[in-house]
Amino acid sequence: MTDSLDNWGRWGDRDQLGAVNLITDEARTRGAAEARTGQTVSLARITTPFPLTGGPLAPATAPTTAVQTMMLFTGFGAPAMAEVMVVTTHHPEVTHLDGLGHWAEGGRVYPGVGVADSSGPTGVRHGAADVFGGGILTRGVLLDLAPGGRLAPAHPVTAAELDAAAGRAGVDVLSGDALLVRGGWDRATAGDVPLPGVTADAVHWLHEKGIAVYAGDVGDAMPPLPGEMPGALHRLALGRLAIPLIDGPNLEELAVTCERLGRWTFQFVVAAPRIAGTTGLPVNPLAVF
Amino acid sequence: MTDSLDNWGRWGDRDQLGAVNLITDEARTRGAAEARTGQTVSLARITTPFPLTGGPLAPATAPTTAVQTMMLFTGFGAPAMAEVMVVTTHHPEVTHLDGLGHWAEGGRVYPGVGVADSSGPTGVRHGAADVFGGGILTRGVLLDLAPGGRLAPAHPVTAAELDAAAGRAGVDVLSGDALLVRGGWDRATAGDVPLPGVTADAVHWLHEKGIAVYAGDVGDAMPPLPGEMPGALHRLALGRLAIPLIDGPNLEELAVTCERLGRWTFQFVVAAPRIAGTTGLPVNPLAVF
Amino acid sequence: MTDSLDNWGRWGDRDQLGAVNLITDEARTRGAAEARTGQTVSLARITTPFPLTGGPLAPATAPTTAVQTMMLFTGFGAPAMAEVMVVTTHHPEVTHLDGLGHWAEGGRVYPGVGVADSSGPTGVRHGAADVFGGGILTRGVLLDLAPGGRLAPAHPVTAAELDAAAGRAGVDVLSGDALLVRGGWDRATAGDVPLPGVTADAVHWLHEKGIAVYAGDVGDAMPPLPGEMPGALHRLALGRLAIPLIDGPNLEELAVTCERLGRWTFQFVVAAPRIAGTTGLPVNPLAVF
Amino acid sequence: MTDSLDNWGRWGDRDQLGAVNLITDEARTRGAAEARTGQTVSLARITTPFPLTGGPLAPATAPTTAVQTMMLFTGFGAPAMAEVMVVTTHHPEVTHLDGLGHWAEGGRVYPGVGVADSSGPTGVRHGAADVFGGGILTRGVLLDLAPGGRLAPAHPVTAAELDAAAGRAGVDVLSGDALLVRGGWDRATAGDVPLPGVTADAVHWLHEKGIAVYAGDVGDAMPPLPGEMPGALHRLALGRLAIPLIDGPNLEELAVTCERLGRWTFQFVVAAPRIAGTTGLPVNPLAVF
Repeated sequence: MTDSLDNWGRWGDRDQLGAVNLITDEARTRGAAEARTGQTVSLARITTPFPLTGGPLAPATAPTTAVQTMMLFTGFGAPAMAEVMVVTTHHPEVTHLDGLGHWAEGGRVYPGVGVADSSGPTGVRHGAADVFGGGILTRGVLLDLAPGGRLAPAHPVTAAELDAAAGRAGVDVLSGDALLVRGGWDRATAGDVPLPGVTADAVHWLHEKGIAVYAGDVGDAMPPLPGEMPGALHRLALGRLAIPLIDGPNLEELAVTCERLGRWTFQFVVAAPRIAGTTGLPVNPLAVF
Repeated sequence: MTDSLDNWGRWGDRDQLGAVNLITDEARTRGAAEARTGQTVSLARITTPFPLTGGPLAPATAPTTAVQTMMLFTGFGAPAMAEVMVVTTHHPEVTHLDGLGHWAEGGRVYPGVGVADSSGPTGVRHGAADVFGGGILTRGVLLDLAPGGRLAPAHPVTAAELDAAAGRAGVDVLSGDALLVRGGWDRATAGDVPLPGVTADAVHWLHEKGIAVYAGDVGDAMPPLPGEMPGALHRLALGRLAIPLIDGPNLEELAVTCERLGRWTFQFVVAAPRIAGTTGLPVNPLAVF
Repeated sequence: MTDSLDNWGRWGDRDQLGAVNLITDEARTRGAAEARTGQTVSLARITTPFPLTGGPLAPATAPTTAVQTMMLFTGFGAPAMAEVMVVTTHHPEVTHLDGLGHWAEGGRVYPGVGVADSSGPTGVRHGAADVFGGGILTRGVLLDLAPGGRLAPAHPVTAAELDAAAGRAGVDVLSGDALLVRGGWDRATAGDVPLPGVTADAVHWLHEKGIAVYAGDVGDAMPPLPGEMPGALHRLALGRLAIPLIDGPNLEELAVTCERLGRWTFQFVVAAPRIAGTTGLPVNPLAVF
Repeated sequence: MTDSLDNWGRWGDRDQLGAVNLITDEARTRGAAEARTGQTVSLARITTPFPLTGGPLAPATAPTTAVQTMMLFTGFGAPAMAEVMVVTTHHPEVTHLDGLGHWAEGGRVYPGVGVADSSGPTGVRHGAADVFGGGILTRGVLLDLAPGGRLAPAHPVTAAELDAAAGRAGVDVLSGDALLVRGGWDRATAGDVPLPGVTADAVHWLHEKGIAVYAGDVGDAMPPLPGEMPGALHRLALGRLAIPLIDGPNLEELAVTCERLGRWTFQFVVAAPRIAGTTGLPVNPLAVF
């Protein structure tokens, strides 16, 4: 089945946008039509930095979270306070956008560029996250797989389950939509409990529907699910289908809002900082109602 | 005149939102109404990082820009490429949001909190940029002070000039709007040419109009303008009026788009990464039409 | 008594060496004469870095120690492994040399230079640690205040106690010597137990003897000792006498060696990396027998 | 000839000291005997950091040198000035010690440990530079290949040339000695001029003589020398013979001193900071006379 799971070459052999190409003017306008009052829900986790500097001025132990900061000496009595910030983008504690250059298989990144051409010690030349710097705006659809609760540990998310959730929401998922999948898990705080995960079967569903962006609090199971392809979301959806992933979103407030409004669609907005040449960027995706 | 330029205490003595309080539901809805097709213009500069690591693997000299990156060794032949990113937020090369805690005067930040209470070596406790983490969405208005060109060096921007530009655009600037002011300058590449700047008189205008957010490629003149208060935008608009500033936006494509569409208003969206406890955050503000 | 505790101006008003000026040729030769077999004891703690990067590739929590490292991607299958290292020099977990520019009082550093002249956001221009980059070599004397054990918590170290230890060792402390004082404490792992500390009385003794460098596992008490000047070692010895301090040495192996050899003097060698413009540098002081 | 150039297994299959094992008590005492007056010459380049932070507080362009620093905000009027330091150790601008784990060939480091066992994203477990943390002290011998001048560009350094220089100096190079080779070049400032380099033939000489440490301003030629093995010093001396290298020493003052004193031997002292788990460390090697 996964043989057909492949967008390499679909938009040319130097393409950098991948499935975001599916966001046509029509898809974008469909998204804009969802924003009526401008009421907004942030889909980002709050990341609390820990100190870049240790020592007498900082705690002796700290969670090694995604961001470190250090306040700069700007002079005695200077009016401006400023800091330097160190970001480990691909960390479960910070909601981030995985660029297509984040994933290599057999030494190649989408749609077939050798890693030596795409990346070097100091940055990414092909498939960097900032190719989406103009903003990703489209319709978003929330599929809540565990309304009011959470999926069982090590639960395998299947296509049938996505269909069922779409049915409950009364939504027809369309090509160019952003898909938000809530399982009720926070990977960053799950500890040693086996995480639920997306199966290759579900990735096939993403492909059939024409999903442009995936943002789920369910990602790749850890440890891998018995009998399932390990890392299917990153290997297949990101690596082969070139669907950019939003890793580590927080969908709790969104689910409550959708439930309250009785609406499971909204405008989905991603405005990543325009920092060039990276494999990923911290983002604050918004759902606008 | 500047005596009345003060929002300290207006929303309580522990407030952290400042002029963003002016974005009422009505103002937000007015902004949402501007987004019709979802067509988007990014207002961020593109920031090209330079290598965090030097040596044989990197160039010997480089512009010391706002971001440095370094690609991480993830193991021989590992599929995931990743990096660490070091960000100097308050740098003219990266479009960023100044939080209210960025500015202290007489050892106090808005609305009167002592710096020792608001900031420490490792972060900000009051007035951090991520208080806007839910997203700032409102109507945006572009005032182009130099259509098709740029302001003269050391030009002082006045209230009368803002009025004139609003008149040309046929726009009534309203309380809760985001104001985007284009002078046609890129501070990051201006070199030694004296920059134009915002006068105290213009800041007074922002106050009268009830501007919620300011994003201008004209900021504080450097060197200070003869006969004008130095640093008026940061000292008065940010420091006293608590209007968060978007520093270093790129408004060129926006101006072209507004001109082409004959529209000078749009939905303005700021979705800063939700990184807690900093004086500023890199952002990619969007104008949605 | 502390009125006379002052070397400001003693070696001119632009001097950067402070008490290291006391290491005359004679003192240096006296040190060299102590090195007979070249047998060496390191006086540095071992600092174990924690990861600069967090996330899937690193532990979720860690002690925020003095050094962080991150291994660099040098290409697939590249032969050279390399890293970047982030160092918080003034951290109790790393043995380091305090430069004279580390300490300011009333906005001035030794011997009276204003901080605005001596330091900026990016480095030190007067009193940087690398003024000792040619190496500090002289005779070292170990005074063990608690042979085989450790001082009581919150113990105040006095001049009389230093005299007594010198008497036990049968050593005449001379001008230009490096003084190593062992109290048997590791500040980095002491937790909340009140640390013993050096009194102003003991600093006076350092001045009388003409100590050129101080390296003690007893430093400034934390919390301050009742009835004693807080921070006397940093404020008086470093700040007024310009005696560079070696903070956080490990003197355990040295004490055992001295006891075994029945010798309390040796050649003392400090070879700080020649990195210019910092307030301190990590060092590995050696005792050579 | 290079078949026999191999110390893998010579000191066991888990050894981490390599050729430093050749520094016997006798060799160390021979070194100590060289130190008579304690007069010292530093063999380190001076490294001038550039700012970690850019922006209004720092220059817009800078050489991307080996070290970056940023001064920390320690509070308004706080007496202690401090900074964070970012070090790219394997950079030609900073004199540093290459640990044995720096070099992998065929996925293995000395004496045969797989890279996956020796290194991870966050550090080195086998062959780290701090195994030499107790200090390296032995006799040093300077061979000046270009007295008063410098070698021609792209000059290949051979065994015969080393013999000739030893003859001129009247020195018998002995097992356990540190070898210092001066060619009169500073790799960090050589620009595009082809560098002279060490040949496999010369590495063979190091092996025969029993050199324990190599510190040369001549290293591996760049570009590789025609007809010679590229990277012979790193591949053979470091990789196969496990001779730790001091990269980027400055031997100019040493050569002048040796010439003046008519002595080409001295005590050689390396006291690297005891930071665990890195592939290299900045050092300030000393020659003590």
